[in-house]
Parts: sequence; structure tokens; C-alpha cells
Amino acid sequence: MKILLIGASGTIGKRIAERLSKKHEIVRAGRKGGDVSVDITSAASIEEMYKAIENIDAVISAAGPSKFAPFSEITEEDFYTNIRGKLMGQINLVRIGQKYVNDNGSFTLTTGILVDHPIVGSTAGSMSNGGINSFVLAAAQELPRGIRINVVCPNVVEDSAEKYAEAFAGFDPVPMSKVVNGYVRSVESRINGQIIKIY
Amino acid sequence: MKILLIGASGTIGKRIAERLSKKHEIVRAGRKGGDVSVDITSAASIEEMYKAIENIDAVISAAGPSKFAPFSEITEEDFYTNIRGKLMGQINLVRIGQKYVNDNGSFTLTTGILVDHPIVGSTAGSMSNGGINSFVLAAAQELPRGIRINVVCPNVVEDSAEKYAEAFAGFDPVPMSKVVNGYVRSVESRINGQIIKIY
Repeated sequence: MKILLIGASGTIGKRIAERLSKKHEIVRAGRKGGDVSVDITSAASIEEMYKAIENIDAVISAAGPSKFAPFSEITEEDFYTNIRGKLMGQINLVRIGQKYVNDNGSFTLTTGILVDHPIVGSTAGSMSNGGINSFVLAAAQELPRGIRINVVCPNVVEDSAEKYAEAFAGFDPVPMSKVVNGYVRSVESRINGQIIKIY
Repeated sequence: MKILLIGASGTIGKRIAERLSKKHEIVRAGRKGGDVSVDITSAASIEEMYKAIENIDAVISAAGPSKFAPFSEITEEDFYTNIRGKLMGQINLVRIGQKYVNDNGSFTLTTGILVDHPIVGSTAGSMSNGGINSFVLAAAQELPRGIRINVVCPNVVEDSAEKYAEAFAGFDPVPMSKVVNGYVRSVESRINGQIIKIY
């Protein structure tokens, strides 16, 4: 398969690329570097990316960092940082991409455990994750030509457990191999409309 | 208690007002009419509303209609209609209102069954509902001074079952009294961070 991976240089994106490149052709996309550059906060940039790549079988988004801020101080603009990136960025990858992806292709988005288990400061991050999970359930029944969509929703991963130990105290970090398996399952099986929780 | 009800003239809002006004003082807010006018798509309008009302014990939002459109045709702007209204409108009611609501007060927001059980055309509506449900979980652990937050998430209500019969085929309409009970429980009990599913 030819797989377009957005966020290919991130903590999870790097490991997805390592694993899937053994069997598939990977096109790496990101804000800087990679094979194609894309700014997912811009619908025009997403459209340009799709026009530049032919014959895509699967799209994986591991993009869209979350803005954290205490709820007493968080601004409307902080919420919109998440909305333009993690939320509408990922939605636009699907909304626009549905015209470009091959028949029986797939989209795999990324959210995380904050959707069910928030931490202090995660109001905006929990919001964008919850929005994507429900969007995926809805889009799954409308995508054309046998195209599927799922979302991988992991716990803190062991690779970044130390960095986030304070904020995610008491969370059980999961092995990266288990998280990557979620993406593999979404791409290589025929499941559709699933929230693949890795926790 | 003094209860600020936003969306007081809507299908659900009217019935919440009827029920709660037997025991409490209700301040009705909405785009037109009511005791106070507010446009929840504007943070400035929300701030003005709070400044105009003293001594609020509970805020109930039954506001924010959803934009429906087939996913093959839906625009980015259609998503932003939901984002500015149902999603950020309700979030801003809490974000701004946390400064104004009395100690041990409460917020009660509204979503719906589309968060788990989408219909064709509900990608934007499912998204905004999912965003609010996860936001509520996160905000519940950060609100100051004993202030609580919950969200009522109903199925189609019997009052509008006929109107929505086609779109919600196979859904089991719930009695309005059961939906209104969700708001009563959120306001009058001490529950916090709950998604009160009425289905």
C-alpha cells in the first residue's frame, strides 16, 4: 500500500513509519521536512498536499499537539489553537481527502486518553479529542467507495512517560509497539468506525 | 436557587423552565426575548449577560442547534457553525461564567445521542457533542469554589419525535419528563463531571 503519514517526525509518527515501511510505501508529511510539507491548520495546504501525491491507499494522521492551560486562565484563543489544529486539522484531512484516497482506502486519526480521563489543564485537549472520536463514528457511515476511518486513542506512551510523568501521575504508560499496532490494525484490517483505545 | 437558563425558548428549554420555576427563580436568556438577551457565539455578549445578572446559583445551557449536511458536501464553514455555537458557545458560558457563579453553584450543558450514535449528516453535530462531553469531564476537576458541571445527553425527545422521525429512524424517543429530570438532578444534587445519558 501507499500510505500518507502526517506528523511523521513526531514521537508516535516516527515509530509508525519505522514499522509500516517494512511492508508499505510511506509518504512522510509534516510542517517541516519529510517528502511533502503540509500545515494541517490550513484547508488550502491540505488540498495542495493531496494534489501533489497520487494513488494514496491510506492516510494516517499523528499530528496536532494539544495546548494545555489551567481552566482558570485559559483563553478562547487557546481553545482555538486546538480547534484549528488537532480538531479541524484532522477533520479537514478526511473531509478533503475523501475525494483523493483510492477505493477501499482508509483514514486513521489520533486522539488520546484525555477524552475519558482528563488531567488538570486538559480542558482544550480533552475537547478536541472528544470531538474527533465522535466525528469518526459519524464519518464512518458516510465515506464513499469503501473508504474506512478509525481513530487510535492511546494512553501515555512509554517513550514519553518520563517527560509527562508529573502531568500524567498515576497513568499506566503503554508500550509503543502496542500503540503502533493500533495503526497497523486500522490500515491492514477492514474495521471501520472504531475508536481503538490503547489503555 | 437563582437559575440562569440559556436557550429558554427552545423545545427542551421551555420544559426545563416550566419544571424548575416551581421551586426556583428562573432568569431566561436567549437570542431574542427572555429576561436577558445573549448571543452565545460571542464571548463579549456572554460576559455582558453575566455582568447584567447578580447572584447566579446555577447555569443551564439548552442552546446551540446543530448544522446537518452530508459529509460529501459539508464545508469547513458548516463545521465552524457548530464550533462557534454548540461547542465554543457552551464552553465560553463556563469559561467566563466560572468568575460569576456563586460558591457551590453549577453548570449544566446539553449534548445528545449523536455523540455515540451518529446519523447520516451528523459529522459536525457529533463532533461538537463529543467535544462538549469530554470538556465537561475535564472542567469538572478544575472549577473553583465548589462549582460543579455536568452535561445532559438525551436521545430524541418525544416532543420532537415526529419532526425528526425520518432522520432518526430506529431511535427510541424518550419522554421529556425524563430529559428534564436530568437537568433537575444536575442542579439539585451534588454530582459533578457526569455525562447524564438519557437513552
